[in-house]
Amino acid sequence: MSVLEECRCAAIIGLGLVGGSLARDLSAAGVRVLGYDTNRDDVAAAVRSGIVAALDDGLAGVAVADVIVVAVPVECATDVLKQVAPFVSPGTLVTDVGSTKARVVGAAFVLGIGAQFVGSHPMAGDHRSGWGASRVGLFEKARVYLCASDNARDDLIERAANFWRSLGGEPTRIGAGEHDQKLARASHLPHVLSAALGIALARGGVSRSDLGPGGRDVTRLAGSSPDLWTGIARENAAALERALVDAENEIAEFRRALSDPDRNALRSRFAIARDWFDAGL
Amino acid sequence: MSVLEECRCAAIIGLGLVGGSLARDLSAAGVRVLGYDTNRDDVAAAVRSGIVAALDDGLAGVAVADVIVVAVPVECATDVLKQVAPFVSPGTLVTDVGSTKARVVGAAFVLGIGAQFVGSHPMAGDHRSGWGASRVGLFEKARVYLCASDNARDDLIERAANFWRSLGGEPTRIGAGEHDQKLARASHLPHVLSAALGIALARGGVSRSDLGPGGRDVTRLAGSSPDLWTGIARENAAALERALVDAENEIAEFRRALSDPDRNALRSRFAIARDWFDAGL
Repeated sequence: MSVLEECRCAAIIGLGLVGGSLARDLSAAGVRVLGYDTNRDDVAAAVRSGIVAALDDGLAGVAVADVIVVAVPVECATDVLKQVAPFVSPGTLVTDVGSTKARVVGAAFVLGIGAQFVGSHPMAGDHRSGWGASRVGLFEKARVYLCASDNARDDLIERAANFWRSLGGEPTRIGAGEHDQKLARASHLPHVLSAALGIALARGGVSRSDLGPGGRDVTRLAGSSPDLWTGIARENAAALERALVDAENEIAEFRRALSDPDRNALRSRFAIARDWFDAGL
Repeated sequence: MSVLEECRCAAIIGLGLVGGSLARDLSAAGVRVLGYDTNRDDVAAAVRSGIVAALDDGLAGVAVADVIVVAVPVECATDVLKQVAPFVSPGTLVTDVGSTKARVVGAAFVLGIGAQFVGSHPMAGDHRSGWGASRVGLFEKARVYLCASDNARDDLIERAANFWRSLGGEPTRIGAGEHDQKLARASHLPHVLSAALGIALARGGVSRSDLGPGGRDVTRLAGSSPDLWTGIARENAAALERALVDAENEIAEFRRALSDPDRNALRSRFAIARDWFDAGL
């Protein structure tokens, strides 16, 4: 199905890695894309490439869009929602792309656009950020979590699912609270472990260029945007704290197993990890 | 330079990912490759592909090789060295490919082949293992640590360096003890963290297929061979324990920063990680 059937014009607030990639895909599909970013250079680059028409600071221009996508760091998403809320028509789909969902879904409800808001979290992207990192096809085969308000319109939930499907994504519905609990482990925990490992290596005098291909993979997320991830981690702090305690315990168990005279104490731990790995292939 | 100049015949004990890839590269370069593995299927596959001629169990056949490579799990390396030692001529280069170096270098000295032994650790490979995972070009641009005995012959150290250079590797000399200290952080620590994260996710009900591309990278090493890594971790237990304590402390610091009202407590930690990442590009 073509994205054009339900979205002739999209407004994207935030033209970073995710918003920019979305703009590229939509533009390639023939959708008119209106875009905004506080980074003037990114907007200029997006306009120059012919992918985006620039929105004014007031964001009133979003009123003509069938779909409004808030693609800013989670810390700013509520403020942007507040700004666009007055321009949302009953039939407009409003969504976002943030890694945490409870707060933004709640904010949409409070702002009176709960019926139109279906929060999205595409599991795509990498450690880089900004328009320069955006690319066509980012959402291909990516799971996209959809978190709607309790009063969201069924047709707009369906439109959100079709929107992501048309970009190659695989939408799946989940409650916002459950999403945040799950993602604390499935995404935020790996990010923090990767960053913590980076710091430990930095303090231990090991450069990333000293690592083999495996170590480089484990530490890739240490290169993520500090601002973006500070926002995500703080917004999901309680669930992430619990996940971190669990990870610390598992590491300490490995450490204890190292000095166990029984070789199997350590081997059985590596085996649990590998069984988990194999089950997810 | 061609590997053929100093190695017309190589014997490789262990035809797994590393030994098998070595066999493929050497055979492609015109070197005669003698091979052995306790896994009869892997030997049969290597022989069928025309890459390897099989060595008998006694390993006496290694006597005709210019270079003998011990490519078995580190736990078995000393036993294999003992087995081949009687067949080593004064001009034969003996090397290995293990992730720990102090014990094997010491063993070569004790076995009376210290003059011929130059231990190697190519920073190449992935989480898979066995002949089926081996491939041409594995050592391209890989750092290869060389750890010689105190009494190693200079010409054989030079031959070891040329051997790896001819396969695309980048040899660099280091003391065996220093190597093990460094690799506890640069390799063994990321492996254990990746496995510990895998266990934490398993216990938290998160499948690897629930992860995005970043999380999948962080957990790739959780798929490594339990036996191989039990051996490596136990052999470098003391240094790895210290590295694990440091990593646990850095994770706990992240956890504490999460609940700090000052946003910068957390941001500054992500920033240290990113600065380290950027410095290693």
